[in-house]
Amino acid sequence: MSDSPRDSLRTVLDPKSVAIVGASENPNKLGGRPLLYLSRFGYKGSVYPINSKRANVQGYKAYPSLTDLPEAPEVAIVVVPGDAAVEAVEQCARLGVRVVIVMTSGFGETDAGAGKAKERHMREVARARGMRVIGPNCQGLANFGSGAILSFSTMYIEAPPQDGPVGIVSQSGAMSVVPYGLLRQRGIGVRHSHATGNDCDVTVAELASVVAEDPDLKLLLLYLEGISDTGHLAETARIARERDLPVIALKSGRTSAGQEAARSHTGALANEDRLVDTFLAKHGIWRARDTAELVGSVEMYLKGWKPKGRRLVAISNSGAVCVMAADAATAVGMPMAKIADQTRAELAKILPGFATTTNPIDITAALLTNSRLFSDILPVLAHDPAADAFLIGIPVAGQGYDVDAFARDSAEFARATGKPLVAAVPQASIAAKFREHGLPVFTTEAEAVAALNQFLSHRELMQSARERGAALARVPHPLTGGTLLNEADSLARMARAGVPVVGHRLCKSADEAAAALAELGAPVVVKGCSPEVVHKSELGLVRLGLDNEQAVRAAFRDMERTLRGQGARFDGAIVAKMASGRREMMIGARMDPVFGPVVLVGDGGKYVEAMPDVQVLLSPFNDSEVKAALARLRIAPLLTGVRGEPALDIDAFCAAVLAICRLMMNPESRVSNLDLNPVLVGAKGEGCVALDAVVYATVTSDG
Amino acid sequence: MSDSPRDSLRTVLDPKSVAIVGASENPNKLGGRPLLYLSRFGYKGSVYPINSKRANVQGYKAYPSLTDLPEAPEVAIVVVPGDAAVEAVEQCARLGVRVVIVMTSGFGETDAGAGKAKERHMREVARARGMRVIGPNCQGLANFGSGAILSFSTMYIEAPPQDGPVGIVSQSGAMSVVPYGLLRQRGIGVRHSHATGNDCDVTVAELASVVAEDPDLKLLLLYLEGISDTGHLAETARIARERDLPVIALKSGRTSAGQEAARSHTGALANEDRLVDTFLAKHGIWRARDTAELVGSVEMYLKGWKPKGRRLVAISNSGAVCVMAADAATAVGMPMAKIADQTRAELAKILPGFATTTNPIDITAALLTNSRLFSDILPVLAHDPAADAFLIGIPVAGQGYDVDAFARDSAEFARATGKPLVAAVPQASIAAKFREHGLPVFTTEAEAVAALNQFLSHRELMQSARERGAALARVPHPLTGGTLLNEADSLARMARAGVPVVGHRLCKSADEAAAALAELGAPVVVKGCSPEVVHKSELGLVRLGLDNEQAVRAAFRDMERTLRGQGARFDGAIVAKMASGRREMMIGARMDPVFGPVVLVGDGGKYVEAMPDVQVLLSPFNDSEVKAALARLRIAPLLTGVRGEPALDIDAFCAAVLAICRLMMNPESRVSNLDLNPVLVGAKGEGCVALDAVVYATVTSDG
Repeated sequence: MSDSPRDSLRTVLDPKSVAIVGASENPNKLGGRPLLYLSRFGYKGSVYPINSKRANVQGYKAYPSLTDLPEAPEVAIVVVPGDAAVEAVEQCARLGVRVVIVMTSGFGETDAGAGKAKERHMREVARARGMRVIGPNCQGLANFGSGAILSFSTMYIEAPPQDGPVGIVSQSGAMSVVPYGLLRQRGIGVRHSHATGNDCDVTVAELASVVAEDPDLKLLLLYLEGISDTGHLAETARIARERDLPVIALKSGRTSAGQEAARSHTGALANEDRLVDTFLAKHGIWRARDTAELVGSVEMYLKGWKPKGRRLVAISNSGAVCVMAADAATAVGMPMAKIADQTRAELAKILPGFATTTNPIDITAALLTNSRLFSDILPVLAHDPAADAFLIGIPVAGQGYDVDAFARDSAEFARATGKPLVAAVPQASIAAKFREHGLPVFTTEAEAVAALNQFLSHRELMQSARERGAALARVPHPLTGGTLLNEADSLARMARAGVPVVGHRLCKSADEAAAALAELGAPVVVKGCSPEVVHKSELGLVRLGLDNEQAVRAAFRDMERTLRGQGARFDGAIVAKMASGRREMMIGARMDPVFGPVVLVGDGGKYVEAMPDVQVLLSPFNDSEVKAALARLRIAPLLTGVRGEPALDIDAFCAAVLAICRLMMNPESRVSNLDLNPVLVGAKGEGCVALDAVVYATVTSDG
Repeated sequence: MSDSPRDSLRTVLDPKSVAIVGASENPNKLGGRPLLYLSRFGYKGSVYPINSKRANVQGYKAYPSLTDLPEAPEVAIVVVPGDAAVEAVEQCARLGVRVVIVMTSGFGETDAGAGKAKERHMREVARARGMRVIGPNCQGLANFGSGAILSFSTMYIEAPPQDGPVGIVSQSGAMSVVPYGLLRQRGIGVRHSHATGNDCDVTVAELASVVAEDPDLKLLLLYLEGISDTGHLAETARIARERDLPVIALKSGRTSAGQEAARSHTGALANEDRLVDTFLAKHGIWRARDTAELVGSVEMYLKGWKPKGRRLVAISNSGAVCVMAADAATAVGMPMAKIADQTRAELAKILPGFATTTNPIDITAALLTNSRLFSDILPVLAHDPAADAFLIGIPVAGQGYDVDAFARDSAEFARATGKPLVAAVPQASIAAKFREHGLPVFTTEAEAVAALNQFLSHRELMQSARERGAALARVPHPLTGGTLLNEADSLARMARAGVPVVGHRLCKSADEAAAALAELGAPVVVKGCSPEVVHKSELGLVRLGLDNEQAVRAAFRDMERTLRGQGARFDGAIVAKMASGRREMMIGARMDPVFGPVVLVGDGGKYVEAMPDVQVLLSPFNDSEVKAALARLRIAPLLTGVRGEPALDIDAFCAAVLAICRLMMNPESRVSNLDLNPVLVGAKGEGCVALDAVVYATVTSDG
């Protein structure tokens, strides 16, 4: 009982004893299924059905209540409805149960008020006794390594289990077993298939972090509907990186319609989708777009391949497959390997004159006449250093072809080279032969290339996360709003943070404005300053290019009149230098309640909302991450100079972005939100300067 | 023999007699396979193997040569190698054969010189006698309606044929049978499976136009590697539209790597890929990205559904499937239908309290407890007018579920509503039950939604092509270059074509330039004028905002000096008004050798190459097509006005674009290429004006 909450949680994967509160004789009821599975799939511990009406349930001795048990079970499953489930959790906590799995539905997912309150209550009751709660509204856990199948899923009847190197951790019950079923249909073994439901205590991410410790796993699949627990997810990623365990996550709720559906499914709160993308990539987790992508490349992950690059060689007996493979490879950014002249010469000796010895290699229909062609060219290609990965496309074969030899020799070739190899074989009977030899087989070349690209890209992502050592910024000061500072205070705050800002004076009178003109030198900009107005241009509160005292004095008076006319506070007028530069860019930042400080970089100017060209960075990040984000912008070509224009001072801009990152990470700064637009960026060596700043903070140290 | 070439071609689909030149006893050889198929699949006509060494081939009486036959065969298949194939074609032409299919390889695809010349020779020999040639380098044709299987493909052994409503016409042999095989694996019947190879005479498009006439077809699939024959492709589309026959085309060679591979496969010339997109869409042909998309939605096309809209209702026993279905629908632009309060109230009476009665509808795991839930809610939904299409997602079922009822009631529901319905069922055994009831079944909800969206979008595309009556512009004057006109001539040409151009004077002396300033009014722009310089800015040949005579005279002299210094012809200097407007846009045009006059519209200014935001239009087109193209631009939000800015004068811009369309369509204009950038567009009612023009033409009527 003195174990950590994490130690308690580990118990659920291999408990010595399990009680089922609400055990049923009917194996097709929620309370009957776990008993069926515990008896069927080799669980070795004690099983205690709780059922006040029967002496035996499914052949196990039954007990009228938890208190009648001969020992405190390590794990209890609760299937009784409504408040009886809450009472059972309370009782479990008192008895010293280590993990309770609440399958009962009808809590936070249907009632954000009372339902959520009951969930909090269960968590508190449990935590007070060192017990952990999984669920409620969960389908349960299944560990085919230990036989602890604590789940009511129908899937394990339909697709009998086989222990294997894949783990699945999901909030959703269906999505804990759909990948399982699809993999089992392909003959792949699965160790873990867990569903956590409403995550009132143990989150899907925390359970994943424990599952990631399993030394037998070669691939971990996650299904998430809402990310609330970045800490455990980052911890999962860290453990996985250290073990070189790839993690693929399907995070649904990408769209507002999906988020709405998720809210009524698991009560998940919506995440901003591009932050999810950024977070997962930063931590080396591949984000699968859908279920097909979640499971599509699994065979490749299990091969233990250590790819060195992404140049593809495609080989087919069909020219069309060659064309489509080249199209597909180009589309995903895999270049066709340029094979050596020596290799080509050797191929030419083997292939007929109308075949193609450049890559992709078209053996042509001559394969029907000479089945050896295929197997004869593979050893030639094995030695070419330009090839990083191979695609073998056999769109048509059968009678007249030595298909067994194709499959056997392909597999032997893959073993000999140690390089990734995929096959594209649409005929089920031919595909089966390649599969028998352990090769990843896809129906079409486009699917094969997409899967190969995912595998290679994921390895690259893991590698860069490992090198960077993806750190996690907890939310330093979770702000929900903050107060708008006026522009002068905003600029001052930015300057203190280390961001170059335009030379300016806050003037309280027309005389001060005239003096500022003299001091700064004509021409100047005059802007009305108020903490109550964000969009100055629309109100005529920005005057550009004023070059004489009279115009500056008039502008000051106009701004005062306009602001007072709007009923807004008038803090004076800013007189600023007319700065020159080459491109207006922008830097934004805000505090995300889940992901912490978010920094935005992009093209600036007045159309940032209408035509956004923005990239997102999650703090903390470094210079190279900023530069990589800038390289993804639409305006990226301008940054390095086009049509004879000089390159921009990206180093200076990056320095400003990193200054904003530090500011947002600093709990003392109390900045919740800021928008620097435009940040005028000069040519290389000329620096950059923020011309305008809109900053929200909870304390206005300047105010 | 007096029939048209098209009549001759029709013969090949149902010939009275077939000779095989190079017939083989071995059914696994190219010359043996057609004999095997003609005997096996019910061909009723006469079969004449040509083999000088045998009296019989595969049970058919053999003949030593074509001249020994008792009659001129309607169709001859040629499999003999090299020049013997050419000789056989010559002989066939002399005998009065109507179509010859040359399977022999090693022509234009391996040798663009001599090989192509042999292809031209075969075509000429054939045309002179009214004979048609299919191939060379082709796998042949298979019509399972007539039993005319004139093909050496292995596929018809592996996947036995069944006549059906799908036609496949392909350049590639593999791609004539891969879709066939995939459809046959799904139990779908295929009527036509044709491969045309190098298309030396009959192109894949011409054959498709004949196949499209088959009244039994419900879907036509095309595989193209190069589009050279827009006329027959447009004709295919026209015939298909009139018959409401959907056509899906997979055009490979999307990328330069793919185009290179295509060149050595079928000798196909590269098409600009975005023109292919535009051409196919304009003619109502759906472009499939890959083989999976080519065949993915076939079941839906065969249902005869007439969809009315694209609002989706999703129903599942899994909340996760609901979330992912909503995500997938949103991603493809299918809104979730908002079901009526009345419907929701009725659903609430049936479903448990923790289920969801908004769309997507989550029946929850309660379906395990009560299998009727599913079938009970369908009739309630059938009456809701907001639903245009349905997705049923059953991620997990089996023991404890009445799966037969789910499948039966879903099918009954689809029949009763007449609305498209797809099922997403990952378990093979459960999916089979839905398939037995004739429903389109997919593994995942994302695949189901993507297929549904393709079907709906294709129907919309066909409808708009039908309304527009997609016309085809033959290339009016196939120009390969033309001469650059100087800017004054270019502007004059544009003005004559009906495009508003900036007020300007071409000045031959500094005095004339000064007079132009006086006439046009300050400020003006001065630009050096030469037919030998395109990029004026880079040479300092553009001076903006000159407002006095001295500056204008100086600019004139500078330009003369600069141009002469460059060794370029000096045609004078253009003095033009400083025009004002709201947005710089661009119009471009050029003559594509295959697709005819291409017009480009997009954002203008100096970054059009670095950051293109351009849409393509194929001539002829109308005002609404221009507006649709503009609405696809990144800058589309600016056109209608953002941040308080007025909408732009898009009517004026469209009028200018249509003027360019007419110019390019006019064979007299002799314009090969033009670039108007910027075209300054004012606010609504203010018009637009071309500030610069670069025109290439073969005759300079102004010069």
